[in-house]
Amino acid sequence: MAGYDYDLFVIGGGSGGVRAARMAASLGKRVAIAEEYRYGGTCVIRGCVPKKLYVYASQFPEHFTDAAGYGWTVPEASFDWPTLVANKDKEIARLEAIYKKNVEGAGGETFHSRAVLVDPHSVYLTAEDRTVSADQILIATGGRPAPHPALSGHEYCIFSNEAFDLKELPKAIMIEGGGYIAVEFANIFHGLGVDTTLVYRGQEILSRFDMDLRRSLHETMEKKGIRILCHAVSERVRKNPDGRLDVLLSGGQKLTVDQVMLAIGRIPNTENIGLEGVGVELGKTGAIIVDQYSRTNIDNIWAIGDVTHRVQLTPVAIHEAMCFIETAFKGNPTSPDHDTIPTAVFSQPEIGTVGLSEDEAVKRFADIEVYRASFRPMRHTLSGRDEKMLMKLVVDGVSRKVLGAHILGPDAGEMAQLLGIPLKAGLTKDDFDRTMAVHPTAAEELVTMYKPTYRVKNGERV
Amino acid sequence: MAGYDYDLFVIGGGSGGVRAARMAASLGKRVAIAEEYRYGGTCVIRGCVPKKLYVYASQFPEHFTDAAGYGWTVPEASFDWPTLVANKDKEIARLEAIYKKNVEGAGGETFHSRAVLVDPHSVYLTAEDRTVSADQILIATGGRPAPHPALSGHEYCIFSNEAFDLKELPKAIMIEGGGYIAVEFANIFHGLGVDTTLVYRGQEILSRFDMDLRRSLHETMEKKGIRILCHAVSERVRKNPDGRLDVLLSGGQKLTVDQVMLAIGRIPNTENIGLEGVGVELGKTGAIIVDQYSRTNIDNIWAIGDVTHRVQLTPVAIHEAMCFIETAFKGNPTSPDHDTIPTAVFSQPEIGTVGLSEDEAVKRFADIEVYRASFRPMRHTLSGRDEKMLMKLVVDGVSRKVLGAHILGPDAGEMAQLLGIPLKAGLTKDDFDRTMAVHPTAAEELVTMYKPTYRVKNGERV
Repeated sequence: MAGYDYDLFVIGGGSGGVRAARMAASLGKRVAIAEEYRYGGTCVIRGCVPKKLYVYASQFPEHFTDAAGYGWTVPEASFDWPTLVANKDKEIARLEAIYKKNVEGAGGETFHSRAVLVDPHSVYLTAEDRTVSADQILIATGGRPAPHPALSGHEYCIFSNEAFDLKELPKAIMIEGGGYIAVEFANIFHGLGVDTTLVYRGQEILSRFDMDLRRSLHETMEKKGIRILCHAVSERVRKNPDGRLDVLLSGGQKLTVDQVMLAIGRIPNTENIGLEGVGVELGKTGAIIVDQYSRTNIDNIWAIGDVTHRVQLTPVAIHEAMCFIETAFKGNPTSPDHDTIPTAVFSQPEIGTVGLSEDEAVKRFADIEVYRASFRPMRHTLSGRDEKMLMKLVVDGVSRKVLGAHILGPDAGEMAQLLGIPLKAGLTKDDFDRTMAVHPTAAEELVTMYKPTYRVKNGERV
Repeated sequence: MAGYDYDLFVIGGGSGGVRAARMAASLGKRVAIAEEYRYGGTCVIRGCVPKKLYVYASQFPEHFTDAAGYGWTVPEASFDWPTLVANKDKEIARLEAIYKKNVEGAGGETFHSRAVLVDPHSVYLTAEDRTVSADQILIATGGRPAPHPALSGHEYCIFSNEAFDLKELPKAIMIEGGGYIAVEFANIFHGLGVDTTLVYRGQEILSRFDMDLRRSLHETMEKKGIRILCHAVSERVRKNPDGRLDVLLSGGQKLTVDQVMLAIGRIPNTENIGLEGVGVELGKTGAIIVDQYSRTNIDNIWAIGDVTHRVQLTPVAIHEAMCFIETAFKGNPTSPDHDTIPTAVFSQPEIGTVGLSEDEAVKRFADIEVYRASFRPMRHTLSGRDEKMLMKLVVDGVSRKVLGAHILGPDAGEMAQLLGIPLKAGLTKDDFDRTMAVHPTAAEELVTMYKPTYRVKNGERV
């Protein structure tokens, strides 16, 4: 090992890479990490963090309106997009600095450079024009929005990356996609006053989530005024002389908007980092193939996070980083655990979910109990807002184990986080029932649903 | 049984009484319930429900201010107290009707009358001027704010009951007490723009909660502008010719305010319902003494809820009602479970808590691990609001069991509800650690605190 410059070289300064570098460094390893763009990666720079800040920004108009039922008279508010962008920039710059400092504080070295594999133990740093060597190499280069070269006029379209930093807020936007990114941005832009259309080729937004959540969110978004067109794709985008964009949709419908945002998937960043040269094996989607310990086909090269296209979530990348450290540097081979991962969609209303959807549970279990509550959150009794909260528990009728918990409504993400604990531990509906309610909360519904709304036996609702 | 008019007569139409009446009726029992004031009881009419609606109302000014960091310019809003009171009245009238209808819908009979025990099987209905008989009698008359006759000028003071329906919003208020009612109202009035002073004889507000929460909430409330005077009591209240009130405090301080609200405790409603006549045993505080099944010293008379002064919470009264039904009508003797009850204080910021405080845990366990995180909630990175969120887990270092979870910050009540499930089930810190984070949420801190902040061994912090 002494023959190498570093014990560990990490390529990519996102959540996974930074965590691995920091932890290895704090174990006393000689560590370097290279990031060509900005430390913090997708999550901090153009994902979770700015997204959630924009969600907050876009929720204020509803606060202003809801206040009336509580006795408040609020004169019309005005919104300045450049202020939001600038304040967001300040915050992500602060976080970026923290990420970098965390590695350096632990004794790691940071580079601002693209890093290209030269051989299994050598990395060429383009910005420095030199090659360094390392015993172990970790690839954590993440992913990026999938392009859509087949779309005529795709060059006029933007992706989530650009959406955060538009010079001006569009008056009208079309967003193509039905995944969480498309849905979250549709709610953000709508909340900020943009005329918003969501176009999705599938049958219903948010595939793989519980169908109840998908339908209820769809309805609520439409009620707010977001246009949602399912079974549709854009076929051509044309720029008008006035700069606006004409979009022709399958089925012949035509939209005229100021921006078209494509959110049709994300792809791993595996090009131009020397993977082919050293023979790192890639899958069909271009993702790096790894074994259960995040090791590639080359013994000393590992990969974690979105570049492996397993589960594309920040906490999963961090978890994979920590397992990698256990495996590679602590003599304790540890596989990342990708089972029963709670997640949130920061739509408006929010989705929080953990475990199996009803449809998935029905496929795997012969006797399912569904507990379902739909109610107006207390806040909206006076606001008058016509929005319902949905809560649902999917329970194995035989073992009583809670297989899935699905929430649509305020704070659903916070709830999913904490429901993750009992679901991961395999607790039963009886454990939920034994818990005293906290009144008045929304979450108390989850511990006071005494009788199943319905059962599904051998696939038949009874 | 056939010799009685009813199988069950319930005195008191609050959460506990209504639940018992409804469940017994739906079992086919002949049930009647008497309520002299309004169905719904403390919780619906002058407790949890209007309180939380007023909390929402009082939070809007912070939303208006916080919006600036997100690019919003909000002209000054104005508040009309009578609108809030009227809209609250509409909502509680709606809920009141539902409570009553729920009993009647299940086949129970409802009376609007005081009910006075005549003998162990007879109840006199004052509004009807007649006596009815019942096999079993359940007393669920609840409680009310403790008066303070020893205070000179107490006749000028109001209690929480009156606070909801003041003709006009005071410019300045003094609230005496350090319990959750005093604290919640202090935040409500302050949020609505009232100059607010909280006076509490104890050392720190919210006794019996975790000391970290108590101190942090105290600091945050003061930072908002609420005056908190601990180690102080009011000694005299005098009315000025202009209608304002002069309060002389112990220590000589003098306050001039428009209203003085006393929130110095609550006492059970056990007077003038014939308890002495039939020999129902009362405790020193005036509460009805019951056994583990909520049975009084008289075999066919039972009592649940606040009138028994066990745990004064709506869900506990409901739970006691359901246990009573099991015991008295389903041949399944069931004791209410008062252990590990999650609760919330709807202060601003909110408190959510379940299990043992650190101090309590240290008394009972020789080796305690404390995991503690204090951070600015993401929402406040752009709002600029100088308010921290506190999260704390108290863990038994030997068994790894999570003994207590304590949260101060937005949505703490919702979090406490769901943390109630793993804590009630006795899950360990390892179960928390195995749960994947949901990013970005606040609650993810609770599953990512890998190392104890400190340990307490045999009472010594190490």
